[in-house]
Amino acid sequence: MRVQVAIIGSGPSGLLLGQLLGNAGIETVILDRSSRAHILGRVRAGVLEEGTVGLMDRAGVGARMHAEGLPHDGFSFAFDGRDHRIDLFDLTGGKRVLVYGQTELTRDLIEQREADSRLTIYEAANVTPHGFDGAAPHVTYEKDGVTHRIDCDFIAGCDGFHGASRKAVPDSAIRTFEKVYPFGWLGVLSEVPPVSDELIYANHARGFALCSMRSPTRSRYYIQCALDERIEDWSDDRFWDELRRRLPAHHAEAMVTGKSFEKSIAPLRSFVAEPMRFGRLFLVGDAAHIVPPTGAKGLNLAASDVHYLFSGLLEHYQDRSNGGLDAYSAKALARVWKAVRFSWWMTSMLHRFPQTSDFDQKIQEAELDYLTHSRAAETVLAENYVGLPY
Amino acid sequence: MRVQVAIIGSGPSGLLLGQLLGNAGIETVILDRSSRAHILGRVRAGVLEEGTVGLMDRAGVGARMHAEGLPHDGFSFAFDGRDHRIDLFDLTGGKRVLVYGQTELTRDLIEQREADSRLTIYEAANVTPHGFDGAAPHVTYEKDGVTHRIDCDFIAGCDGFHGASRKAVPDSAIRTFEKVYPFGWLGVLSEVPPVSDELIYANHARGFALCSMRSPTRSRYYIQCALDERIEDWSDDRFWDELRRRLPAHHAEAMVTGKSFEKSIAPLRSFVAEPMRFGRLFLVGDAAHIVPPTGAKGLNLAASDVHYLFSGLLEHYQDRSNGGLDAYSAKALARVWKAVRFSWWMTSMLHRFPQTSDFDQKIQEAELDYLTHSRAAETVLAENYVGLPY
Repeated sequence: MRVQVAIIGSGPSGLLLGQLLGNAGIETVILDRSSRAHILGRVRAGVLEEGTVGLMDRAGVGARMHAEGLPHDGFSFAFDGRDHRIDLFDLTGGKRVLVYGQTELTRDLIEQREADSRLTIYEAANVTPHGFDGAAPHVTYEKDGVTHRIDCDFIAGCDGFHGASRKAVPDSAIRTFEKVYPFGWLGVLSEVPPVSDELIYANHARGFALCSMRSPTRSRYYIQCALDERIEDWSDDRFWDELRRRLPAHHAEAMVTGKSFEKSIAPLRSFVAEPMRFGRLFLVGDAAHIVPPTGAKGLNLAASDVHYLFSGLLEHYQDRSNGGLDAYSAKALARVWKAVRFSWWMTSMLHRFPQTSDFDQKIQEAELDYLTHSRAAETVLAENYVGLPY
Repeated sequence: MRVQVAIIGSGPSGLLLGQLLGNAGIETVILDRSSRAHILGRVRAGVLEEGTVGLMDRAGVGARMHAEGLPHDGFSFAFDGRDHRIDLFDLTGGKRVLVYGQTELTRDLIEQREADSRLTIYEAANVTPHGFDGAAPHVTYEKDGVTHRIDCDFIAGCDGFHGASRKAVPDSAIRTFEKVYPFGWLGVLSEVPPVSDELIYANHARGFALCSMRSPTRSRYYIQCALDERIEDWSDDRFWDELRRRLPAHHAEAMVTGKSFEKSIAPLRSFVAEPMRFGRLFLVGDAAHIVPPTGAKGLNLAASDVHYLFSGLLEHYQDRSNGGLDAYSAKALARVWKAVRFSWWMTSMLHRFPQTSDFDQKIQEAELDYLTHSRAAETVLAENYVGLPY
């Protein structure tokens, strides 16, 4: 088999790239080691920047997102027993974010790809990119005991942090940067109305908490926890009690609790691989970079990578110019590092660090005090949160 | 002897407070363990916020400062071989800083105090505050082998980090916060014209550098150095060579060098003591807090403390209300911590940290990249640099 672009990974970035390319008449195949059902069942983030929303629209899959997504014009910082609202809309001259679960976005993309009869090969084992240093790259995979080969012009590595794409690059060609945070997030999904119409980011002496949502009837709550916490030690009651303790009283009292139907602990990590292009292999999204979820940047960074790569591929096929592809890595990384910095900053400002000095703790409190008294500082937060321009 | 306010320390904060109180008809004495000549010979910082300039004017000692001081509407960040100008005036809606050496400011204050025949006792040994927990505080000191006592209503501890005022407070009544940075500044004064009309803050792989000035013919230059560097290992030639290496080429080539007449190494430290009031003893300036010199905040923070304390004392004597004095510590500390945070941030962003991870180094570079591409981020820098409101 031969296609123009072989896409490894059927997450949001691979699907979005495939849809944009397909609509432009560029032939793709998507390979994923997981099953369709597994991919659709994954629970992930859900705060979309306007740039991400625009790409979904451009890919022709924005209808349900606009109908069901919740536009958010602001969020709250809760600390010292009070709320401080960050008015994103006002601070950024009219920008907002859209709360729409990654699970839903993935479903929209998969269903449209199927409606357009574009090929995805699920449960493809040992997917491996080859020959991307030369002019004739190809991808191999195994299915039902048989090894298959797909020849292509380019390979897009959209297969996440643990995927095969980045691992196919020789160590000598890649440089990686990493920070592991000394805590995780214990997250719960529950069919209860969210405590607030907007997200609440709480900094409390007991640790960070986040009140988020998937819909007006489905809440997503998180609390900072130690890395050695075990999920089986956290009954629903214990979770709700701990969450309430970290919120201002009026929120704690108003909170509706219920049975959780998803509960998990995720570590927090920052990771960047440089460069993001190796000959005819391009890394996209989590395959090249991971951010802690605090700033809701992971999915949005994947989307901006897709934007740069799609533009470059379009220029290649339509204008016979490689300018966009040659600039891909530098352009994507410039935006990636700014988002990595923002996510690190927001994480540092809102969490309690177990080994922190008294001085550093006071600096964190001074930062929150300054931030909530300076329009310029609020604007810095807001412009990063809604997404820096592509 | 009896006065209304005994001021320990004849640095800028003690002198400024004494002048403001004296003009309001409140009697003071200033005690200092050093000689007049020593105090006038100290070389210190020299970037004044508008609030500090305003206090000098209010104290009636602003004439020479306005005549000889250099108004600066901006400064430069130099990194990656280029300059990026921070336009303070534009970003803050018309604010600027005034470059005027602390040595000159001290001289103006001492000469005016002498012209006004207000008492300063120099070379006072073992200056010690007593009884500030009760209604009858007093200060003792020794001179010419005799112990003297001054009774007073209040004691202002303006005697710096190593002074006796903070040390007179029981450990159990005070909480301190400290951060020691893993480098120092090697500074040089030279009678050469500054390389630029404005300050240049340089971040370079070899370390931080700062091009500053005292006048159009006197330059003040600094380079980051290891804490174990010895001044005798730094010839003038070696200093100039190292400084040039850390600057963009056009500055390095334009730099006029000459013989240095002052050369010293200073460690960088952040320190805050809480509270700043103990009964009838008030700590002011360096006696309560130290910042690294990167943000030029040390003298300006001392001035804002003076502002709050002077207001409180005026209210006490003129309106018979202790509201201002009771609020002194909280008000002063709220502004102190914001400036401590700013100084820490500017220090972190501009210096090279010997033990830093590759990730943290990239975050620093991303921060400079972001800062120089966002008006909101530039405004955050500018509004802190010119000084947050009192």
